[in-house]
Amino acid sequence: MKFILLIATVMITISSSSQNREAISDEIITLEKNALERWNRGDIQGYLGLYAEDIVYFDPMIDKRIDGLQNLDEYYRPLSGKINVTECEMIEPKVQAVDNMAVLTFNLKSVEGGHVYYWNCTEVYRKSKDKSWKIIQTHWSYVKPEYCNPINQ
Amino acid sequence: MKFILLIATVMITISSSSQNREAISDEIITLEKNALERWNRGDIQGYLGLYAEDIVYFDPMIDKRIDGLQNLDEYYRPLSGKINVTECEMIEPKVQAVDNMAVLTFNLKSVEGGHVYYWNCTEVYRKSKDKSWKIIQTHWSYVKPEYCNPINQ
Repeated sequence: MKFILLIATVMITISSSSQNREAISDEIITLEKNALERWNRGDIQGYLGLYAEDIVYFDPMIDKRIDGLQNLDEYYRPLSGKINVTECEMIEPKVQAVDNMAVLTFNLKSVEGGHVYYWNCTEVYRKSKDKSWKIIQTHWSYVKPEYCNPINQ
Repeated sequence: MKFILLIATVMITISSSSQNREAISDEIITLEKNALERWNRGDIQGYLGLYAEDIVYFDPMIDKRIDGLQNLDEYYRPLSGKINVTECEMIEPKVQAVDNMAVLTFNLKSVEGGHVYYWNCTEVYRKSKDKSWKIIQTHWSYVKPEYCNPINQ
């Protein structure tokens, strides 16, 4: 009887844990898609509202990592209202999570000004004290770009 | 008296928590530097030994995310003994951690075959059941590359 109870407890624990992971995954992918949809029509506040104070950030346009929300806000501000992505497909989003941190990775196809862009993306989310998920790390890069030495640019 | 005890407890908790973060940060940066040093002389086993089974991986040479240790092992195998990085500088490594997951970001300057390369890097580490840290996500990208549409390559 004790053995059956033990097995039942283990099964419930495993089931609840994987349900929890699935719920985290769904929540994070939804947050990202919403922020991305806003970004694609020039609304930078979707992402800015998701970033934690200690966000760190990479994209292919910058010389080095940007640290902190204030610096990222300054970097984003000139882009407000200037983005018009007409097609966007998030490819195979995957979330790897523990209880209070999770990493979301995906490839992305986006079309802007008639050009097609292929991206790699990594977002790291951390659970805040108020239980909301915030991004603490963003890394956007091009799929298979040409290397050019930044010193020579 | 109760108030003083409360303040002391809070201070000890904060202090122990930040010491813990510092210890995690030191441990992870050391793991990364050791794997990188081995990589730079053509030894791929340093990184392969650090990767978890569910590792996901991006670099500028691949069409899409690589999922899983077996696939990454196959991708790395032809590089064994072929890498010879003669200079390597990890720039401003930063670790953002919770108890059992941590994200390490840095820029990197590396010299190989007389060429200088500048990189962005994001590594996500997760604590395993045996308490060792394993990488579950790697993202390498070039600093300021030229975009070229992979369809046209």
